[in-house]
Amino acid sequence: MPAYATNMRLKFPILALILEIITIILYAVFVTYDDGKGHGHDANSNHTSNPVELYPMFQDVHVMIFIGFGFLMTFLKKYGFSSVGINLLLAAFGLQWGLLMQGVWHMDHGKIKVDVFKMINADFSTATVLISFGAVLGKTSPVQLLIMTILEITIFSINEHLVANILSANDVGASMIIHAFGAYFGLAVARVLYRPGLRNGHENDGSVYHSDLFAMIGTVFLWMFWPSFNSAIAEPGFVQLTAVINTYLSLAACVLSAYAISSLVEHKGKLDMVHIQNATLAGGVAVGTCADMNIQPFGAMLIGVVAGIISTLGFKYLSVS
Amino acid sequence: MPAYATNMRLKFPILALILEIITIILYAVFVTYDDGKGHGHDANSNHTSNPVELYPMFQDVHVMIFIGFGFLMTFLKKYGFSSVGINLLLAAFGLQWGLLMQGVWHMDHGKIKVDVFKMINADFSTATVLISFGAVLGKTSPVQLLIMTILEITIFSINEHLVANILSANDVGASMIIHAFGAYFGLAVARVLYRPGLRNGHENDGSVYHSDLFAMIGTVFLWMFWPSFNSAIAEPGFVQLTAVINTYLSLAACVLSAYAISSLVEHKGKLDMVHIQNATLAGGVAVGTCADMNIQPFGAMLIGVVAGIISTLGFKYLSVS
Amino acid sequence: MPAYATNMRLKFPILALILEIITIILYAVFVTYDDGKGHGHDANSNHTSNPVELYPMFQDVHVMIFIGFGFLMTFLKKYGFSSVGINLLLAAFGLQWGLLMQGVWHMDHGKIKVDVFKMINADFSTATVLISFGAVLGKTSPVQLLIMTILEITIFSINEHLVANILSANDVGASMIIHAFGAYFGLAVARVLYRPGLRNGHENDGSVYHSDLFAMIGTVFLWMFWPSFNSAIAEPGFVQLTAVINTYLSLAACVLSAYAISSLVEHKGKLDMVHIQNATLAGGVAVGTCADMNIQPFGAMLIGVVAGIISTLGFKYLSVS
Repeated sequence: MPAYATNMRLKFPILALILEIITIILYAVFVTYDDGKGHGHDANSNHTSNPVELYPMFQDVHVMIFIGFGFLMTFLKKYGFSSVGINLLLAAFGLQWGLLMQGVWHMDHGKIKVDVFKMINADFSTATVLISFGAVLGKTSPVQLLIMTILEITIFSINEHLVANILSANDVGASMIIHAFGAYFGLAVARVLYRPGLRNGHENDGSVYHSDLFAMIGTVFLWMFWPSFNSAIAEPGFVQLTAVINTYLSLAACVLSAYAISSLVEHKGKLDMVHIQNATLAGGVAVGTCADMNIQPFGAMLIGVVAGIISTLGFKYLSVS
Repeated sequence: MPAYATNMRLKFPILALILEIITIILYAVFVTYDDGKGHGHDANSNHTSNPVELYPMFQDVHVMIFIGFGFLMTFLKKYGFSSVGINLLLAAFGLQWGLLMQGVWHMDHGKIKVDVFKMINADFSTATVLISFGAVLGKTSPVQLLIMTILEITIFSINEHLVANILSANDVGASMIIHAFGAYFGLAVARVLYRPGLRNGHENDGSVYHSDLFAMIGTVFLWMFWPSFNSAIAEPGFVQLTAVINTYLSLAACVLSAYAISSLVEHKGKLDMVHIQNATLAGGVAVGTCADMNIQPFGAMLIGVVAGIISTLGFKYLSVS
Repeated sequence: MPAYATNMRLKFPILALILEIITIILYAVFVTYDDGKGHGHDANSNHTSNPVELYPMFQDVHVMIFIGFGFLMTFLKKYGFSSVGINLLLAAFGLQWGLLMQGVWHMDHGKIKVDVFKMINADFSTATVLISFGAVLGKTSPVQLLIMTILEITIFSINEHLVANILSANDVGASMIIHAFGAYFGLAVARVLYRPGLRNGHENDGSVYHSDLFAMIGTVFLWMFWPSFNSAIAEPGFVQLTAVINTYLSLAACVLSAYAISSLVEHKGKLDMVHIQNATLAGGVAVGTCADMNIQPFGAMLIGVVAGIISTLGFKYLSVS
């Protein structure tokens, strides 16, 4: 497509560079390092004496965003390489923009003071974009995707602020609701769009086999690190431990029910990769809104089991196949 | 195989759901969160003030279990995808069951109080199952594998308790002996079974090449994070540092001797992937039983070198090829 | 090649075993565990009360060395498997040798006391070798590579000592300059050598596609964990946080400019994997020398943007294509 190419050649680089330059100017005016002397509204970030204490959890979330989401979409074989590459582009810009959009609500003497807590939230804000990206993969240009990134993260940050701070809703839970529905809806759409295509395009099984293994890299990293995702911004101490345990058990229980229902509804009792991915996501998402609450371990597991059943049935009977 | 399929369609989902429901009921009765107020026998878990201090090490072990073991077996190309998927199923159920079976020996007021320390041990208990799974991959149904999981983890937990608490053996070392021999024996069996098959089935080299690279993902993650595996439940402080250093150096030394012997005994002096995997595992396993002891860095390296030599020779002359 | 094979069969195992035995003897004489009682010159390693506090950052660096560099080179399809395997060999020997060579300058009562800080530095010293390895991949034997490892790490350690301690240069910055130029030069060479070959050898697109995805595993892990690389040996506390933030933002900004310039200079506005890898590396390397300084977030981003532009233009117009 020479027309598209010429377009791209001019529009994409100009847009990308302009956005980056605007972002840098805004950073020059508004953003500085956290120096530990802040009295911001952001209570959680001041709980710890060591400013990099949350760093390992940040890196877990980082792996989910860049490896997890990046490779999850490689099962869309045709767009496999671009899924990892464009995922990197959108998330790299998204986190810069997200830090800014989320930070304006928590300024300290007119400055956004960056710390690991804010970096985790910035990664979170990109998740919504990456999910939407999954739904439109292969149908949009990088230019459209960059514009989508700006819009979606801006709206997400305003929403998050309204729900959490104006309506005084539970902070972790509220932002999780947003994540959860965003993520889940997006992935559902992606799968609905993807499955008919997969069924028709099975001419090269070896290749599909390898693409599935690449997708499993994303899936398993998401599954493993979801406890970090749900607990990273929880109150430090036993509340954070509770969020870890609830997510860990919900995810484990969800695997059993998702595999069970998958094997029940599939033609030959065979396990389908898409159900493993349901298991991955449903348990973590479903428990996300109450991960830091005292729902007891068995409560978290019940949530996981139900999420695994509903999501697998949903994908079976709501998707076009 | 329609008969197998019908079987599977009924038996597997029913078994999986029943096991999960029984597990949830047991959790409802016996399991709660650690609240930091316990006086259990489980001394190690009370050493630290921050309840998520061990969490990064837990995640390393988690990556070993789900990425490491999952992808290690993808070199069995034919079963590649199912190895990652079934690995997830067995480990997800196994850790729920293991937490229960290991926890009954350390109850506090009739409750198993979950903390990161217990989560690491639960992950450990699944390792024995995953190793056995490696040996029987492609020869057993998911139903058989789930039953194997229950039995093996129950026996493992009783064994572990007997050795560690009744016989008053060294806690870290004892459980490591169990891990070590279980793991190593299982992997040896898997390789013996696998190698003739590989030799006969080389018709598609490109595919084998890629399968080898997937297996390297598992191998290298196991190699890198083995210091976490051997030190995660060691006494915090300098004892834990000792376990990290010993494992790190043993693994490094083992690579040299495994590659050297491999190149010596192979037809054309070529390195074989299976020897790299020996290097991966032999050094970590061999030093596991004494990783937290003062064997000095050079002692750990000697253990690694010898382990690399023995395991490579073992695979060469004990396997059918 | 039977001659090479016979050669290899004798030379490589003998060299590898002799090097390992010499190393173990040196460890027996000079190396012991850190016991927290040292008064070495190595101030940074005594800042923390918990001896494994830096361990999560060490593991991030470990993943960069063994997964990052190992898989980065798999885009050289022909040498794909050996790139991961030989990378493991060289890094495993290199870290043992590096610990020794770096340690002799910081002895305490005639002993090198191993701690996590020294383990991180040992991993760093292997990075220079792995980069050079990238430049000569497929053109050298394991014997030559092992000798290169010894020589390069010895010279690197002397250099590092001279610059940091004798010339009293900034410690983090100085070693970073060495890393940076070593790494960047090596990668530039590797790419220059590689690209003409790739253009000629495109007969098997599916395979190249998968090789690219494997390379993305290495690329993305390097990109994600580079903040750990640049901050791991920084002064604990807010200086370390500064190094994390600067690297994180420089890398993010670099992605935008590298993609933009890449799309501008390529034939059809298409993104090229090699540019994504530029983005990965240029931002992290460029900010490395001043990551722990107060250059402000926007300063780090400017460095990233410029690095992305220069490196992409450099690869376009300096490489033979």
